[in-house]
Amino acid sequence: MSKLRYIVGLTVLVLFTCPLSGQDHPSVFLTQKGVREIKQQLGKLPFLNRSFQQLQKEVDAEIRKGIQVPVPKDLAGGYSHEQHKRNFSTLQKAGVLYQLTNDIQYAVFIRGVLREYARLFPTLDRHPATRSYARGKFFWQCLNDANWLVYVSQAYDCIYNWLDPAEREQLNREFFRPYADFLSVETPQFFNRIHNHSTWGNAAVGMIGLVMNDEKLVQRALYGSGHKVPADMVRDNDGGLIQLPGQAKAGFLAQIDEAFSPDGYYTEGPYYQRYAMYPFLIFAQALQNKRPDLNIFSYREGVLLKAVYALLYQTNATGEFFPVNDAQKGMSFLSRELVTAVNIAYHFGEKDPSLLTVVEQQGRVPLNDTGLSTARALAAGKAVPFVRKSVELKDGASGAEGGIGILRSHSAENDLCVVMKYSKHGMGHGHFDKLSILMYHGETEVYQDYGSARWVNIEQKDGGGYLKENNTWAKQTIAHNTVSVDQRSQFDGDVRLADRHHPTRYLFDTSDMEIQVVSAVEPSAYPGMELHRTIAMISNDQFENPVILDLFRISSESAHKTYDLPFYFQGDVMKTSFSTELRLFESLGNDHGYQHLGIEAISRPEQDNVVFNWFHEDRFYTLTATADSTDQVIFGRTGKADPSFNLRRDPVLILRKNNRRDAVFVSATECHGRYSPVTEIASNAYGNIKKINILKNNDQYSIVQLDTKTGRSMIFAICNSDNGASVHHEVVIGNEVVEWDGPFTLIHRKPMN
Amino acid sequence: MSKLRYIVGLTVLVLFTCPLSGQDHPSVFLTQKGVREIKQQLGKLPFLNRSFQQLQKEVDAEIRKGIQVPVPKDLAGGYSHEQHKRNFSTLQKAGVLYQLTNDIQYAVFIRGVLREYARLFPTLDRHPATRSYARGKFFWQCLNDANWLVYVSQAYDCIYNWLDPAEREQLNREFFRPYADFLSVETPQFFNRIHNHSTWGNAAVGMIGLVMNDEKLVQRALYGSGHKVPADMVRDNDGGLIQLPGQAKAGFLAQIDEAFSPDGYYTEGPYYQRYAMYPFLIFAQALQNKRPDLNIFSYREGVLLKAVYALLYQTNATGEFFPVNDAQKGMSFLSRELVTAVNIAYHFGEKDPSLLTVVEQQGRVPLNDTGLSTARALAAGKAVPFVRKSVELKDGASGAEGGIGILRSHSAENDLCVVMKYSKHGMGHGHFDKLSILMYHGETEVYQDYGSARWVNIEQKDGGGYLKENNTWAKQTIAHNTVSVDQRSQFDGDVRLADRHHPTRYLFDTSDMEIQVVSAVEPSAYPGMELHRTIAMISNDQFENPVILDLFRISSESAHKTYDLPFYFQGDVMKTSFSTELRLFESLGNDHGYQHLGIEAISRPEQDNVVFNWFHEDRFYTLTATADSTDQVIFGRTGKADPSFNLRRDPVLILRKNNRRDAVFVSATECHGRYSPVTEIASNAYGNIKKINILKNNDQYSIVQLDTKTGRSMIFAICNSDNGASVHHEVVIGNEVVEWDGPFTLIHRKPMN
Repeated sequence: MSKLRYIVGLTVLVLFTCPLSGQDHPSVFLTQKGVREIKQQLGKLPFLNRSFQQLQKEVDAEIRKGIQVPVPKDLAGGYSHEQHKRNFSTLQKAGVLYQLTNDIQYAVFIRGVLREYARLFPTLDRHPATRSYARGKFFWQCLNDANWLVYVSQAYDCIYNWLDPAEREQLNREFFRPYADFLSVETPQFFNRIHNHSTWGNAAVGMIGLVMNDEKLVQRALYGSGHKVPADMVRDNDGGLIQLPGQAKAGFLAQIDEAFSPDGYYTEGPYYQRYAMYPFLIFAQALQNKRPDLNIFSYREGVLLKAVYALLYQTNATGEFFPVNDAQKGMSFLSRELVTAVNIAYHFGEKDPSLLTVVEQQGRVPLNDTGLSTARALAAGKAVPFVRKSVELKDGASGAEGGIGILRSHSAENDLCVVMKYSKHGMGHGHFDKLSILMYHGETEVYQDYGSARWVNIEQKDGGGYLKENNTWAKQTIAHNTVSVDQRSQFDGDVRLADRHHPTRYLFDTSDMEIQVVSAVEPSAYPGMELHRTIAMISNDQFENPVILDLFRISSESAHKTYDLPFYFQGDVMKTSFSTELRLFESLGNDHGYQHLGIEAISRPEQDNVVFNWFHEDRFYTLTATADSTDQVIFGRTGKADPSFNLRRDPVLILRKNNRRDAVFVSATECHGRYSPVTEIASNAYGNIKKINILKNNDQYSIVQLDTKTGRSMIFAICNSDNGASVHHEVVIGNEVVEWDGPFTLIHRKPMN
Repeated sequence: MSKLRYIVGLTVLVLFTCPLSGQDHPSVFLTQKGVREIKQQLGKLPFLNRSFQQLQKEVDAEIRKGIQVPVPKDLAGGYSHEQHKRNFSTLQKAGVLYQLTNDIQYAVFIRGVLREYARLFPTLDRHPATRSYARGKFFWQCLNDANWLVYVSQAYDCIYNWLDPAEREQLNREFFRPYADFLSVETPQFFNRIHNHSTWGNAAVGMIGLVMNDEKLVQRALYGSGHKVPADMVRDNDGGLIQLPGQAKAGFLAQIDEAFSPDGYYTEGPYYQRYAMYPFLIFAQALQNKRPDLNIFSYREGVLLKAVYALLYQTNATGEFFPVNDAQKGMSFLSRELVTAVNIAYHFGEKDPSLLTVVEQQGRVPLNDTGLSTARALAAGKAVPFVRKSVELKDGASGAEGGIGILRSHSAENDLCVVMKYSKHGMGHGHFDKLSILMYHGETEVYQDYGSARWVNIEQKDGGGYLKENNTWAKQTIAHNTVSVDQRSQFDGDVRLADRHHPTRYLFDTSDMEIQVVSAVEPSAYPGMELHRTIAMISNDQFENPVILDLFRISSESAHKTYDLPFYFQGDVMKTSFSTELRLFESLGNDHGYQHLGIEAISRPEQDNVVFNWFHEDRFYTLTATADSTDQVIFGRTGKADPSFNLRRDPVLILRKNNRRDAVFVSATECHGRYSPVTEIASNAYGNIKKINILKNNDQYSIVQLDTKTGRSMIFAICNSDNGASVHHEVVIGNEVVEWDGPFTLIHRKPMN
């Protein structure tokens, strides 16, 4: 940490010794050199050309509608709100077009709109709607005003030299500077937080400062305004703290220090990281253009670019983000924020040719220096496949507060992926999902995370905001593929409590070709209990695709009524080893999300293994789990207690253990075979696991044996108490000694029975 | 009919005056000319080349496994059955490869396998399994033996000239001729039916006859064996009659006469038509090659090729067949049967360049003269889009027994399609679905047909056969988008009764750009009632996509407790105009399929229109329907009373009218807008219909008015009692006179209220 502080100190020094340069416009989104080269390359580079034509089509259509700058009045979704949003987006694009075409109509349009805003601004108090902790001017909240200024400063930069100097000075003096002051010194509860709202505020003030060459604004953006938050401002509208305990810093650099882990992981998860990244990267790009000496992309060992990779690693085969925490499913690296991010990562990073494949899939590029770089490289055929590797992304400012572990099959063909989440809670958008897993086969969800209960911007669904089922269902533990104790959520559903704790990484080891392991411990989600989950991905000739072995250990000081481990599979039930006693779809419980699960069938295991075989999107899957006759197997479905049909109707299989103190869930999931309704041929429709035996399970060791139908047998052993890499272990099983070095091993042997 | 008989008589004459030619092998699947040209073109034509390489890969892998001709023992799914199936497929391909490569290994392999079969054959009685009404030799049923011979005769043809004449004569005399006799004269209950089983039998005997130049076998194939069915043979294993009432003819030509309507419609529906077409077309191809004078593809005004088009018209935008009657969803024109069919239709038909687009999507071609034709034309860039037009396919041998009406939007962009089924029941595989509709938007189902309750060839699901839920659910009326009366199925679920009746076409008119109409009457499905449904597709500037207007009239002699009209929508409920009172998912009834529907919510309409808005695959949909306060709206879901999870869990909205005599359901369905989870922008999320008013509804006229939110109004009027094209109608509505010519009209006017 002291080293980071030193770097920050140094950059401050450099800034003061480097006087602001003169009429170097544009330089925030575009550069003069970039403009020259793009003009030459237009028509030659397909990606650039296509993006240019698309932009022109959009902007020309907007210009035809005429200038509309209404008096602020509405909340999100209302006319004035949506029109001001549309304005900032159009202005930014029109600025780029003016630079690339020299067509004066674009500059005239921008000036006309800016005049309207400048005329309106002094007449406005804060927005009439009082919902926000930081009410804006043109919008109901400063966040949207900051969005506006981030985009409009780019447009202003593009016509800066074209504007009459007198008018420009007037705009600076009477509109932009006061507006920047409004967002910062007049609203410190918005500007001086460590929060993504403030990142937008910092970027907005900094970018208009760079455009106007207003050094005070730039300094304020980088280091905060210094103004104290009013004493009565404690929490924002989402319940988040305005002032973090012990918070000493503010401003853009402090945001970078605090927002990401050293691996570039963002604690709210990839859906919000995508949103939060834009102001980070767009301001960083402006700084890199105008203040290359600051070397912003190397700041904190290049964490901004690491964050782009962290986002890309958290996607499935089609680029959709893992929908952990509050996240709308389907959001992907095709989003406009990721177009910006990936092009910046290429251009200002190491020119990684695998990023070009992502750009190719995105199908468009930013019309600036970064897009020129990638379009050129694509035209030169430099793209190589983007390979998603097994990777751990540690959470916490120092990387010591858990993380997420992503195991992926080594072969590209078997694109199997399992994710374990042992990161921090993630604040207001976090879910009570410690030690939950997600599983994908290519683009197909095998075990899904529900995501958020929200239809973003779909008016029919409560105006597109979070639905109440997001709290009553989506955030609850039972909505996730992890253990719920006594039908209650982790931390009893208390966000503040959850935010004070985090799981502990036990191990993450992907060095072996045959077995990759992630393991983590959750010590505080339930009082007096320790949860320890280990996921092993086993790839060998016994299985068509890697098999996922799952050991979920529960160590408890006292007995509990129920331990529930759900598997949110998708698709159709093919066959079960247990009879399915049908039920009347009653709720599984009254609260903590259980009220939203209807029981389809409930049953007792008939053997000491439960086998469940299902079919989804042309493939078969089999879950084999150890069980005993006091356990229960429950088929459930989401959507109970949901009069507005706000939830999907998705299936789940829940393994339940009753009246236990310590317990362990051991299961293996296989993906296998194919079926096509066109050929009507089914191949490999059953899994190859015949039997799972728990040979040992205590605080020191867990040892399980997998017997296959092909007559082979393998043992997975893990030491639960010592993850030392070179420790030697010897365990006696019957009259055999199993021995290995390091925390875990996989041993092949003849079946014991 | 007399004209047809004349044609048949004529062809018999021609056959006798045209002596069989000599050593013209191959000539059944391939021709000598074809072989020469394919050899020249291989490597030049991409489609041909790819198909060749694929074939070689498959066959080489099989040859490496060695010859396996097991003693027949198993049913479908068992080893001996599957191996004999694999053998005939491999032999056919190996024959083609021998011809195209002259590589003797393929001929040697075929001969080796044939020797094994010839050795085995005389040792066999009928197959030991006794399940079939016509037990086979190598298989449990003659149907599979006929499959075998259809394929193997093609292989035999390919090595005929290469074989030692003495061995060939022995094979003919001791194996193939007796085997053909076995399938025909020794099993007349299999060979002399009018049934798809017999089509296979006829083709098998005819094709081996053509290969061996055995004129007796060819005649037998074309006209039947003349042997009477044993008196105790009344029904087959599916309950189908062996001997149809009044059946005078048998053989291949009689099958063509009876199987298809003049439009090429096959009464069992496209799923079974696909299966049935193969023996028709493959034998026809062989006849065309060896007996061009028979002119088989012109027989019955070219009905065999019309049938190929009929199949293609019954597909959605991705080529999937409408899943009416027993049909596994997902089966499409990519199937191997359609590869054969489409290439034959191109080569022996009019060289229709739009068929080439289908071939392109299929991605492979048969390695014979037909595939050579299409591959050549594709390489020459001759393909033009295959346009699915609005079309009516009439059912019945003379085309007078109902049919199916397919309305499609005229613009290719708005690929909206609605299908009304008023065809015959379709025998054992028919569903009680008279006047049901299906609706598609491109490849997306808007209102689905459930299809069959079966997982074809998936062993887990009752061996891959029909599940009992196929009878208890999938065939029942309530499983379809048509009216159920008093919670009972049409014809009270009696197949034999249903087979004796058919709906009556009332009109099918697609000549107008703004409005296309299909209308049909079902007079006998429920005693004392007439059902009359009219579907209009309205395309004008008031709607983003064509709107589907649906008038379902019920005229009854007596009152009934319930009329239920379900809409099997897919996707997520967005908004309803009625409150949704949640229920405990109890069954909607005890039988006729109702036992498989769980009630999710039930409600009374609150206004005189019910509005239901939903979202599915990036698009919004709105159903607006007239209703009154005695009606009910029911949200249901399939999957009750389904302990084996044999059914999908699909949603339905049911409009219910209680205690009525006459009644009418009037509704409009709109497809509109877009939403992407990546841009998170929703456009046009609500429909444009404000109100539907029924202005008049009696035996003579139905007149309804649609008011739009954009302030427009239109009236749809139809005469229910006279479908005359030039009849003039005048109807007084209040103090207005509505007048028009012909059965229906659409009139624009200002809203009345």
